[in-house]
Amino acid sequence: MTISGKNLIAGEWSGDLTAGFSATDAIRNQAMKEVFAQASKIEISHAIERADQAFVSYSQLPATARASFLRTIGEQIIAIGDELIDMACAETGLPALRIQSERGRTVAQLGLFANLLEQGEYQGVIDVADMNRQPVAKPDTRLGYLPLGVVAVFGASNFPLAFSTAGGDTASALAAGCPVIMKAHDAHPGTSELVAQAISRAITLCGIDAGVFSLIQGKNYQITSQIIMDPLVKAVGFTGSQRVGMILQQQIHQREEPIPFYGELGSVNPQFILQDKMANDGRILAQELVASLIMGQGQFCTSPGIWAYITHESCSTFELSASEAIQATTAGVMLTPEIANSYKQAVATWQNIDGVELLAKGQADKTHFCQAALFATDLATFKANKSLQIEVFGACALMLRLKDQQEMMELISLLKGNLTASIHATDNDSEQSHAISMALAHKVGRLIYNQMPTGVEVCASMNHGGPFPASTDLRTTSVGSEAIKRFQRPICYQNMPKELLPAQLQ
Amino acid sequence: MTISGKNLIAGEWSGDLTAGFSATDAIRNQAMKEVFAQASKIEISHAIERADQAFVSYSQLPATARASFLRTIGEQIIAIGDELIDMACAETGLPALRIQSERGRTVAQLGLFANLLEQGEYQGVIDVADMNRQPVAKPDTRLGYLPLGVVAVFGASNFPLAFSTAGGDTASALAAGCPVIMKAHDAHPGTSELVAQAISRAITLCGIDAGVFSLIQGKNYQITSQIIMDPLVKAVGFTGSQRVGMILQQQIHQREEPIPFYGELGSVNPQFILQDKMANDGRILAQELVASLIMGQGQFCTSPGIWAYITHESCSTFELSASEAIQATTAGVMLTPEIANSYKQAVATWQNIDGVELLAKGQADKTHFCQAALFATDLATFKANKSLQIEVFGACALMLRLKDQQEMMELISLLKGNLTASIHATDNDSEQSHAISMALAHKVGRLIYNQMPTGVEVCASMNHGGPFPASTDLRTTSVGSEAIKRFQRPICYQNMPKELLPAQLQ
Repeated sequence: MTISGKNLIAGEWSGDLTAGFSATDAIRNQAMKEVFAQASKIEISHAIERADQAFVSYSQLPATARASFLRTIGEQIIAIGDELIDMACAETGLPALRIQSERGRTVAQLGLFANLLEQGEYQGVIDVADMNRQPVAKPDTRLGYLPLGVVAVFGASNFPLAFSTAGGDTASALAAGCPVIMKAHDAHPGTSELVAQAISRAITLCGIDAGVFSLIQGKNYQITSQIIMDPLVKAVGFTGSQRVGMILQQQIHQREEPIPFYGELGSVNPQFILQDKMANDGRILAQELVASLIMGQGQFCTSPGIWAYITHESCSTFELSASEAIQATTAGVMLTPEIANSYKQAVATWQNIDGVELLAKGQADKTHFCQAALFATDLATFKANKSLQIEVFGACALMLRLKDQQEMMELISLLKGNLTASIHATDNDSEQSHAISMALAHKVGRLIYNQMPTGVEVCASMNHGGPFPASTDLRTTSVGSEAIKRFQRPICYQNMPKELLPAQLQ
Repeated sequence: MTISGKNLIAGEWSGDLTAGFSATDAIRNQAMKEVFAQASKIEISHAIERADQAFVSYSQLPATARASFLRTIGEQIIAIGDELIDMACAETGLPALRIQSERGRTVAQLGLFANLLEQGEYQGVIDVADMNRQPVAKPDTRLGYLPLGVVAVFGASNFPLAFSTAGGDTASALAAGCPVIMKAHDAHPGTSELVAQAISRAITLCGIDAGVFSLIQGKNYQITSQIIMDPLVKAVGFTGSQRVGMILQQQIHQREEPIPFYGELGSVNPQFILQDKMANDGRILAQELVASLIMGQGQFCTSPGIWAYITHESCSTFELSASEAIQATTAGVMLTPEIANSYKQAVATWQNIDGVELLAKGQADKTHFCQAALFATDLATFKANKSLQIEVFGACALMLRLKDQQEMMELISLLKGNLTASIHATDNDSEQSHAISMALAHKVGRLIYNQMPTGVEVCASMNHGGPFPASTDLRTTSVGSEAIKRFQRPICYQNMPKELLPAQLQ
């Protein structure tokens, strides 16, 4: 397929390439040849207006028609073939195996929501009338769900497929009956266009109003600002840094009509290693934690950033094993030169903090590669330094050497919200496990026992969210079938004749 | 029982009465004898800290223990007897029959959530492990719900019992496992104290940590501000005017951690009368609409403020019948002199708009009484005047005389969000009914056919919320059993041993 470099505006490819931008070939660290047009104000307005128009017919489609549309998008993504893998690898530096597996996940996510729609999962609640009730008759009331309207989605740099153009946010919004305005991440515009082409073909094949999906390319914040401030936009999905997320949030707060903002902004995903576990499995656990940490150069939302344990003799095996594992890691390319630069700065900051010990570094490579790093500190130093408490995006972890159980409980109380946390323990740690899990549950969206935080299962019982800053709305998940609820809202139909009710409430 | 005039701070009554305030006897329009202490900064901080401490034990209570607590609160409210009715009548001017029925609803709401907890309704979702899955094993994941933490509730002026101290917000928060900081509405501090005494007795009887409930009295905004900005407060429930609601919302936006804000701010609850219905039932429908409008002096959130229809000959019967019914109404006292004053001003504003016709006024009485009013206008005037588009709190309605179906659809597109709307139609209007219901559904939280909007059924299928400004979070309801979800959030337990799981997920 040919990359046009244009924006997909309700079925039409448009844009001025003369003032365009290019992505960076991540490994070569040089501009790629494809040029992309930054969407104009008029193009963005038109895309949103057409999305709002398409909402009328799209929201009234039977659930099975939406399911079929989602499956067709998946088929069309597969049909792109290796060109998609090659493009995504070039733009992100992620290896082909990872991109292939991410493509599988993307298609599976579309299928998950298609299944959900075909099963008619959200049927609502029906309370029939009781005309004889005293002192007043009970009316017939039926609770159903309506899609919110136009949804704006911002692609994630670290998931060029599974959390970008046809990723989890898009799939769940389309499943809910909402048109999508997709702002492509500027680090992978080519991957985004290829997937948008697939969606466009699916729209044609399924006979759906082309306004239901538009792809907006661009690098400047005015584009983002215009999208989130448009009164026709009724919800926003965003995955990215806390800094950018807070800029969006503050601007969304200026809107007259408040709308849901689903931002996933950062998480340190603390790991708690209890004493018996440490004594028995310290060596292997250290290796597993390092393996989880360096997956994708630590550029996963669920990367384990803090490892906490109470110090005693057996910890030396754990620390040594972890240090050796880190030293053995080869450097990998990061998603963008900017991310590599931020990572380097964060590591340098930690290295200069009194009371922070550098235990090990991985092998070095070019400047835009990630050299893994392992630090250790105590609770007092952690408390005194804010930079130790926030996520470092990359393969860098902080070991927290605690004095006793009391310090462990204090650490938990100090933690901000996280996507996930793990307790590593044996049956002999059960008393401690219980106390920690009760407190830790209130700090995370997912609480894990004896497993690594990376690897998010896409299923009905998954929750990928959590207290701030892990997410800006802890009542929702961005992964799993519950994600559809972010783009629906309840409505009660009272005393409605059958023919005016949605099919599932009749 | 004796009114102390003090704040209930985690089981202790405290406060300085010397700088206190008094409520107004609504009918006599003069200060009542009881004096109430405005809560101090220290008292408020202490109440919130104790609530946060109580959260640990309260959130871990079995659901059945919370159910029993809710029922005991209901019993203790009933046990107050006539003193509660007399106090609420004096403070609000609402008649005894209404207050008695509201007390019944309040106790029934507590019972609804108790039933829900006893039935174990929210069991979550379980996906068991599949160790043989390829390419990676499926972990055991279980989705449950956790209470959010301390909830701040602001009492509503128009529901001194059912949406105040032990009202819907408090009941659903306590049911969810959240401690409550209750800011009493300053128009009914005595009613609030009597109910807080009942809650305090229930806390003692059930052996619950007294930090789980505090009552804050006061009249100044600093009290509100301190409560909503406290980092330990994790959600806010508010029912009141759009003006005050937006002040709260803007301040909550300044918090570092975003929290859910459930504001119910205003609604015009439009009524659409279709042609065949108008021709056949115009006279009686007009009488029913007036009866719905003047209930409680129009001081219900669901009062029908706009009546829209396409003009033709048969409308004259409807308009005449409505005008006669309005003229026959006697004036009733309003909740507060401030509300009466705002109502009078709003009516005067409408009366001075070119193109707005005053059809009828009800009988007049004292200045703090509500004189019903009925106006009529056309779509052009409605569009040109913002004051016609917002709620007038009181027994005042605007008839919208439309030219044709196109104007009716345009009116729907112009509407902001509403709690509810009704379509009044016969089978012969079915084509129009269908078009209108499809469009109107996106503007309301509850869509009604041939019934009045006042009278909100408290049941599992109710939705009392809607697009802004009806509510600040259209994904939630403040009435019915789904209201509990406002104060819970999902959590996924992965690979957890049985003894670390909540009972309902084991």
